[in-house]
Amino acid sequence: MPVHDATFWAICYHESGTRKRMSAMRENRRELLLRACHSEPVERVPVWMMRQAGRYLPDYQAVRARHTFLEICKTPALAAEVSLQPLRIVGVDAVIVFSDILIVAEAMGLPLDVPDAGPVLSNPVRDLAGVRRLREFDPARETKFVGNAIREIRREAGPDIPVIGFAAAPWTLACYMIEGRTRGDISRALGLLRTEPALLRELLDRIARATVDYLRSQVEAGADVVQLFDTWASELSPAEYDAFELPATQAIVEALASSGVPRILFARGSAKHLASMAKSGADVLSIDWNTDLAEARKTLGHRVALQGNVNPSLLLGDPAAIRSAARDAVQKTNGQGHILNLGHGILPDTPVENAKAFVEAGKSAPVAMHAQAGGPES
Amino acid sequence: MPVHDATFWAICYHESGTRKRMSAMRENRRELLLRACHSEPVERVPVWMMRQAGRYLPDYQAVRARHTFLEICKTPALAAEVSLQPLRIVGVDAVIVFSDILIVAEAMGLPLDVPDAGPVLSNPVRDLAGVRRLREFDPARETKFVGNAIREIRREAGPDIPVIGFAAAPWTLACYMIEGRTRGDISRALGLLRTEPALLRELLDRIARATVDYLRSQVEAGADVVQLFDTWASELSPAEYDAFELPATQAIVEALASSGVPRILFARGSAKHLASMAKSGADVLSIDWNTDLAEARKTLGHRVALQGNVNPSLLLGDPAAIRSAARDAVQKTNGQGHILNLGHGILPDTPVENAKAFVEAGKSAPVAMHAQAGGPES
Repeated sequence: MPVHDATFWAICYHESGTRKRMSAMRENRRELLLRACHSEPVERVPVWMMRQAGRYLPDYQAVRARHTFLEICKTPALAAEVSLQPLRIVGVDAVIVFSDILIVAEAMGLPLDVPDAGPVLSNPVRDLAGVRRLREFDPARETKFVGNAIREIRREAGPDIPVIGFAAAPWTLACYMIEGRTRGDISRALGLLRTEPALLRELLDRIARATVDYLRSQVEAGADVVQLFDTWASELSPAEYDAFELPATQAIVEALASSGVPRILFARGSAKHLASMAKSGADVLSIDWNTDLAEARKTLGHRVALQGNVNPSLLLGDPAAIRSAARDAVQKTNGQGHILNLGHGILPDTPVENAKAFVEAGKSAPVAMHAQAGGPES
Repeated sequence: MPVHDATFWAICYHESGTRKRMSAMRENRRELLLRACHSEPVERVPVWMMRQAGRYLPDYQAVRARHTFLEICKTPALAAEVSLQPLRIVGVDAVIVFSDILIVAEAMGLPLDVPDAGPVLSNPVRDLAGVRRLREFDPARETKFVGNAIREIRREAGPDIPVIGFAAAPWTLACYMIEGRTRGDISRALGLLRTEPALLRELLDRIARATVDYLRSQVEAGADVVQLFDTWASELSPAEYDAFELPATQAIVEALASSGVPRILFARGSAKHLASMAKSGADVLSIDWNTDLAEARKTLGHRVALQGNVNPSLLLGDPAAIRSAARDAVQKTNGQGHILNLGHGILPDTPVENAKAFVEAGKSAPVAMHAQAGGPES
């Protein structure tokens, strides 16, 4: 359950007149992230980056040179080490556990390999028998390395740093389960959606149930926030999203309500799915860089917080432009009910200095404290 | 120069009262396509499909089993054979010459290989020296197989079937030239855009000049229409599109005005680029399936014809849904100033029967003859 330190914030809002005095205070980044997730007033936006633990960091590459991708995922000490690198090196406000969305597919019975060419599930789901062969699994036992990595992160980072757990959204995991490997298109998955809608619904339902248990175990291990990644939502029309993905996503979001942690929903293609995503019940919608943050806020009001959405390729360029993009993003929301992030994962070629410039600019971006931040009911 | 058979159409519009009588008449599909491109009145929409000569056709696979992809591209008899397959098998209204957008990159000096994993340019452009090493080339000599394929198609199909030539739009070819191979992302290209805008502009300018000559040679060989493919426009913001791609695209479109053939511009990400695409001067905008045809028509009026935009993955499903989608698309434009197509290339897993269902439904979709079709000046 998120703890709200009322005294701390009361000082911020009612006594302190200057930003300087506030920043001199002990800063609890966990509180900051939770307040942003709940659309409560904040004095600055929290900042993190999707894929922040990854190839653009030489420190990550050094670990990766000695271990396979899956070894890192499955060895809590290694997963924690690379998860914490961006906190130390780039200064992000939240740590997301290093893992892979396909861990759930493997636990459900599809053997996973991750060669350099990209992940391969060697026994893809192609028919109803394939769907029904999928296993339920006990995350506390079969994917305990994820929980242990979260515990290790918490231990090393202390109580003031928020930890984010995650899983794929059902349609996205279904796409990988059906395709077996990424070919750049997902035509088998779309074919099943068209020709075998009942089969696809059963698959989404099984994934959703497994994902609830999987995310609950991450919360039990100490995750303060959980995020669903819906990369392949971009390939669905709004009607298809509503018919297939929305009910499965809602089931997860609702089941996690009792865990008390904010739920973030990221979707690529958010521009067309925004209204549907809002119906999911998620506390935060993480939007891609083709969605305008100000438009999203205008459409959705303050019912839901927003995360995003700077174009990751901007971080390949000039630091001045990066800082300007970070400030522009914050300005679009007044910095309230907003977690600054990229619109998609950070690109492997990104210079570390540019990632730092983004995070620093976001942290120091002016926010409108007087602006309506709103609560869940506004 | 397009020939307008005034007598033929006068009969259609003024004497014939029934669709039945019209369809009994000799149908000139070349005239039909040209009229649609020029937003002139038509009695039905012309239909073709991007990537219509390709892997979903067993006849194509049979040729491909005996020849490499590049052998087919570079052997006019083979290129013509596979180009004509969809005319014969699926009944499309236009033949697009079988080729590859990377032929221009090769002719400009980057050796091209096309293994099964996808095309590779072995000497990618990474710096200004790389840009300046690119050669101008004489299409009549160095890519004469393309012109000869078009001549062969014309010879076999006769004068009543339109032939479409094509090339990549400059940004899209630049992306492949910079990346060397498709990794699913184009971060090197985006990095150059951010850090070396002058270099990128010079590259786009060189590509644009080469593309003008290349497309002119296709028109001289008999292409009735030309299309630019801008797959990677989706990765540009509207401001970036305007700053980099629009001038390069305009240069091509304007230079081809004197050829007298309609110019179609396809872009993935058309929803965000529509206004800019309209500024290109193209006669037809080919839009992806995330753009609503009725919205596009409302935004652009009848200044420009539209091509598209059925979701290719719909063709993996039920023929009834495919027919309905084809009719819906035609209804959104009243069938005037509209070339029915997919919103992106046909998927390799598409059943041939489904492709036929799409084409047949499009051909028989009711159009509103009384609706304002408009000419270039309206």
